[in-house]
Amino acid sequence: MPSWVDGQPLERLSVRDRGLAYGDGLFETIAVNRGSPTLLARHLARLGEGCARLQIDLDLALVRAELLAFSRELGDGVAKLIVTRGDGLRGYAPPQPGLPRRILQGSAKPSYPACNAELGVRLFPCVTRLAEQPLLAGMKHLNRLEQVLARAEWQDAEHAEGLLLDTSGRVIEGVYSNLFMLKDGVLLTPDLSRCGVAGVMRAELLAQAADQGLPCHVCDIGLDTLLGADEIFLCNSLYGVWPVRALQRHEWPVGPLTRKLQIIACDLLDS
Amino acid sequence: MPSWVDGQPLERLSVRDRGLAYGDGLFETIAVNRGSPTLLARHLARLGEGCARLQIDLDLALVRAELLAFSRELGDGVAKLIVTRGDGLRGYAPPQPGLPRRILQGSAKPSYPACNAELGVRLFPCVTRLAEQPLLAGMKHLNRLEQVLARAEWQDAEHAEGLLLDTSGRVIEGVYSNLFMLKDGVLLTPDLSRCGVAGVMRAELLAQAADQGLPCHVCDIGLDTLLGADEIFLCNSLYGVWPVRALQRHEWPVGPLTRKLQIIACDLLDS
Repeated sequence: MPSWVDGQPLERLSVRDRGLAYGDGLFETIAVNRGSPTLLARHLARLGEGCARLQIDLDLALVRAELLAFSRELGDGVAKLIVTRGDGLRGYAPPQPGLPRRILQGSAKPSYPACNAELGVRLFPCVTRLAEQPLLAGMKHLNRLEQVLARAEWQDAEHAEGLLLDTSGRVIEGVYSNLFMLKDGVLLTPDLSRCGVAGVMRAELLAQAADQGLPCHVCDIGLDTLLGADEIFLCNSLYGVWPVRALQRHEWPVGPLTRKLQIIACDLLDS
Repeated sequence: MPSWVDGQPLERLSVRDRGLAYGDGLFETIAVNRGSPTLLARHLARLGEGCARLQIDLDLALVRAELLAFSRELGDGVAKLIVTRGDGLRGYAPPQPGLPRRILQGSAKPSYPACNAELGVRLFPCVTRLAEQPLLAGMKHLNRLEQVLARAEWQDAEHAEGLLLDTSGRVIEGVYSNLFMLKDGVLLTPDLSRCGVAGVMRAELLAQAADQGLPCHVCDIGLDTLLGADEIFLCNSLYGVWPVRALQRHEWPVGPLTRKLQIIACDLLDS
């Protein structure tokens, strides 16, 4: 599988990179089909927004060109793009001027069981809670120890994903997915202004719902509200949409709206 | 300046390292004098504790041996030790079994102005607040975007350090230092069970204070309490102790206890 650093085929990078030192950077995980990256505009928009918030002066046109060339080489698979603030001396102060680094890593498409999408998944109730940090909320940055701890909580294959709450007990997301619920014909998804990763597929589904005149609220969601949902589903930019069929003793049917959005997501990722 | 990866002189590491991908690891910053690392037992103890909490199966005896050999090569300077969970496939799940990676980077001793230690420093009041995450609190892990954002808040040389509060408004630490205050003969330092880095010099000074019968409390400290202090000082394992002389319009004298602990820290770092 190919690996590029700053546009060159390389498997290694400097030990002085601030991505390693401090997680000082961002990433995107992009499905690639027949040599083309999917949802490219949304991935680049999120990356650009994250860079603006972290004051990383990235050449997005260069990244776009590299991603297109890398995807052609990869063919079918997953392109993981990491952008860091580049090399630094010891100490937290960002180097001035910074020279951001682009890293591209190819891997095979994940082989999730087909039943995840068809029958729905069981959520593991993670004990790990997400800390509330508005300055970092929403970004897909490289500080991901909370996700590492949460994902280490279960090993069994019965649970395809875990449910993450924040430290105040609000429902936020899956470990590697965003979450939506339907109640009385209204689509709800957690507000991610305190913590969580604002996924590209989440943004796309919010836009699709708006296009179709489906009422959709981004708001705080308590666990009780989630448990009272008519339908629940997860999404990300690799697998699309998975219905949630169970959390502990609670069960949900795979509903019609979930199926409808699943088809839309599938089309987006196949195109 | 030397740089080792897994015991070999190397300047590069795999792009698949989980330290880069997720900040999935820990670090120690160690002053090295005449070929010997200072406060070695405390650095290794903290590293071992962090590895236990993150379930990174590190061979501490190997790390110790490498650190001693690296310090001999470095002579005088700073040895930064990074331990990561090693390479991983895509996805948060920790690889089983893990093969932790050791990275050592040498650099020159920082050249802080002598007046920091002699006259004391002015603290910058950081707007960045530390999120409260008990699962990660105290560890010197690689998820340090909060410190990067905080350190980017000021560029002037007038402020040597910044003051960090948590999202609830408690006083926690400096950006790269721990903080102590003295009030009515009692030493106080913030409780770091929700956020913050429990520094090696902090641990050493707490032990020294206990040895000398000086009452010392680890507790929550509000900003008002800090402003009412008789003496305030910062510490870390590179510079030792810096008195705090000012925060905005508030000023403090450099008091006798600060000087006493400064001498102790200085001796520890010179030995």
